[in-house]
Amino acid sequence: MRVEVVAVGTELLLGQIADTNSQWLGEQLAASGIASHFHQHVGDNHERIVLALRTALARSDAVIVCGGLGPTQDDITRAAIAEVMNVPLERHSELVSTIRGFFEARGRTMPDNNLLQADVPRGAVIIDQSRGTAPGLICPVGQKVVYAVPGVPYEMTDMFERAIRPDLLERQSATGERSTISSRVLRTWGASESALAEAVASRFDALVDDDRVTIAFLASGIEGIKVRLTARGTDPAHATALLDEEEIRVRELINANLGDIIFGVDAETMEDAVATRLLARGATLAVAESITGGLIASRLVNVSGASTWFRGGVVSYASEVKFDLLGVARGPVVSPEAAMAMAEGVVRLLGADIGLSVTGVAGPEEQDGQRAGTVFVGLAIGGTLEHVALRLPGDRPRVRAYSAISALDALRRTLDRLA
Amino acid sequence: MRVEVVAVGTELLLGQIADTNSQWLGEQLAASGIASHFHQHVGDNHERIVLALRTALARSDAVIVCGGLGPTQDDITRAAIAEVMNVPLERHSELVSTIRGFFEARGRTMPDNNLLQADVPRGAVIIDQSRGTAPGLICPVGQKVVYAVPGVPYEMTDMFERAIRPDLLERQSATGERSTISSRVLRTWGASESALAEAVASRFDALVDDDRVTIAFLASGIEGIKVRLTARGTDPAHATALLDEEEIRVRELINANLGDIIFGVDAETMEDAVATRLLARGATLAVAESITGGLIASRLVNVSGASTWFRGGVVSYASEVKFDLLGVARGPVVSPEAAMAMAEGVVRLLGADIGLSVTGVAGPEEQDGQRAGTVFVGLAIGGTLEHVALRLPGDRPRVRAYSAISALDALRRTLDRLA
Repeated sequence: MRVEVVAVGTELLLGQIADTNSQWLGEQLAASGIASHFHQHVGDNHERIVLALRTALARSDAVIVCGGLGPTQDDITRAAIAEVMNVPLERHSELVSTIRGFFEARGRTMPDNNLLQADVPRGAVIIDQSRGTAPGLICPVGQKVVYAVPGVPYEMTDMFERAIRPDLLERQSATGERSTISSRVLRTWGASESALAEAVASRFDALVDDDRVTIAFLASGIEGIKVRLTARGTDPAHATALLDEEEIRVRELINANLGDIIFGVDAETMEDAVATRLLARGATLAVAESITGGLIASRLVNVSGASTWFRGGVVSYASEVKFDLLGVARGPVVSPEAAMAMAEGVVRLLGADIGLSVTGVAGPEEQDGQRAGTVFVGLAIGGTLEHVALRLPGDRPRVRAYSAISALDALRRTLDRLA
Repeated sequence: MRVEVVAVGTELLLGQIADTNSQWLGEQLAASGIASHFHQHVGDNHERIVLALRTALARSDAVIVCGGLGPTQDDITRAAIAEVMNVPLERHSELVSTIRGFFEARGRTMPDNNLLQADVPRGAVIIDQSRGTAPGLICPVGQKVVYAVPGVPYEMTDMFERAIRPDLLERQSATGERSTISSRVLRTWGASESALAEAVASRFDALVDDDRVTIAFLASGIEGIKVRLTARGTDPAHATALLDEEEIRVRELINANLGDIIFGVDAETMEDAVATRLLARGATLAVAESITGGLIASRLVNVSGASTWFRGGVVSYASEVKFDLLGVARGPVVSPEAAMAMAEGVVRLLGADIGLSVTGVAGPEEQDGQRAGTVFVGLAIGGTLEHVALRLPGDRPRVRAYSAISALDALRRTLDRLA
């Protein structure tokens, strides 16, 4: 059972809106153990919608088409489906009453074009509209099926959950297929995608002919590389058991080859990892930021309950602020010494147990004789001062973002070492 | 000339990441006057990528395929293109040197699998990699063409601008097609989408039968509502003239109905708007942030040349930091008085001309008897103290983000008033 999503709307092709519907449907189908091999976007054009639907029906067993069911002249999905089914559109009298009732209940006059929404391809089954005026449709095409739903996410999700998913699962169980797909993401910081791939290559190769478990690598921009484990089980418990087993294997390979680079699982962020360790230690944190300009602090306050362990920070962007407020010795401000003095200074100023600081060169010009991408992280912890020197790639915003997560990672590793 | 975008990656089908690449490419193609009738998503599977490419080549003149060019075992786009071209993959010796050089420059050992990225379908032209290790490819298929780019947005956008757009425009001009679509975005803060639509309704209606100029509204999440003007001209100068004319009309309608809510044009951000005014005034700024936790400072340092006018800031997350460091009177910290004292305190502490502060309740619980979403902005400027009271909607991250841009907008309007 393979389902293809076809999202209709010229605004999608023009990039005017993001296609959140296909993403949501992809997630839901996977969670229900239903395979999806293709998605399409197509504009508001009759011939092209017909072509997209025929393409989808040729390579998939079911199609969910989103959008183009509204009351205006550019809502032409109904007519395209009728052509693919090779049947006429017929005005549905019960739908006419429902749509009229929708307007009457709100004391509004119904523009006549709303009745277009009561036109239904002969042979289609109606999915009642509970949140808008456009009904959904279940349209048989030979042994296959086209589901049509409005493009408004609020209406689409309701119809999927209420009518489409149950219908798909029934069709799937009729074919004797039974499975659940689950996945789990291990989040890493500090290794390249290729180094990770090499670390788990033996396991990856062993899984090539296994259709139950797969490993994939996702570069997540500034948040590191994600390793995604996906398992197909006979039911949710089986899929989870497969993931648990696989996670142990993959963690061992990564730890053995690359060290402690996994900082979180699924939605867990680097700041969550830091928060857990600070809470366990009962320690408070203050930050002094130059190059990152407040990015670290703004990440930390996103953690629920941050007020327990986060005191606050100083954004010492001007050098004088580093000298006068944080007590950094006058001189170059991009140096290990300056980083450590910033960390020490902010601990004193804000009365925290631990101080974390970052100073560096965002570029493109060099500063204090240091190249762009040169960054020093300072740590004041338990009366001692430490620093970590980094060389980071990318343009200004990227160097900043990498500096922020690298500083948090340095704190995570230090807290683990001292635990 | 019709271009189809094919985004490769099982994670797209599973809904694990949003396909921002197709959206961005759609926007760029439209802006360049190049038509796009279809997009596809396909998973990391050889046969299905081949099928998706063949489908795209059958109905479009050019295909941009994003993703699957990396160094790992699931990066199989190169092989799929070679099959569609009916040619072998050949290892490209110059690419081998470039990729080795990339690692050597960073003092890192190159994992061998990186050399997979030097495999090129015979007959393909290489788009040099300037930001990563994977090169892009320009692959002729009869009279048509497949462009392959990495899925990492940062690398993809660079290759599109540097190599693909110029190549497409050249192919398009060879076909004799002529028209340029240009667009301009007016960025607003502080009015709803429906209020904006109502403000320009007369002009919107007048343009319904005009195929040269259109107006659209884009809700941009935390960055306000964008009003996009799009013009189709005979050449770039004509399109620009149409936009200039339309901008004057639309600005007048918005200003007359909603006041000074347009803060920028196209890529201009709220912090850019603030920076321009501070520079003109020759004044320096310091910020004191509680609820926003460093967000305002991190936005400000993104402005090129911020060190001229930005001193830095204090993230006074714990109340004691507000009392002890900023000199806020002990008592409730979510109040107009606390906001003004924070602004005054940070001006003194950091030696700036102007102080901007924010204190508020991110929620979901109330604080100091104030409901979630209650936010006070403080301003210390020219020896006087002011405040602005706001009530903002949304969950914690949203209230924070709205607070940051609202505070900057308050500063923008104050600087204009005092100018």
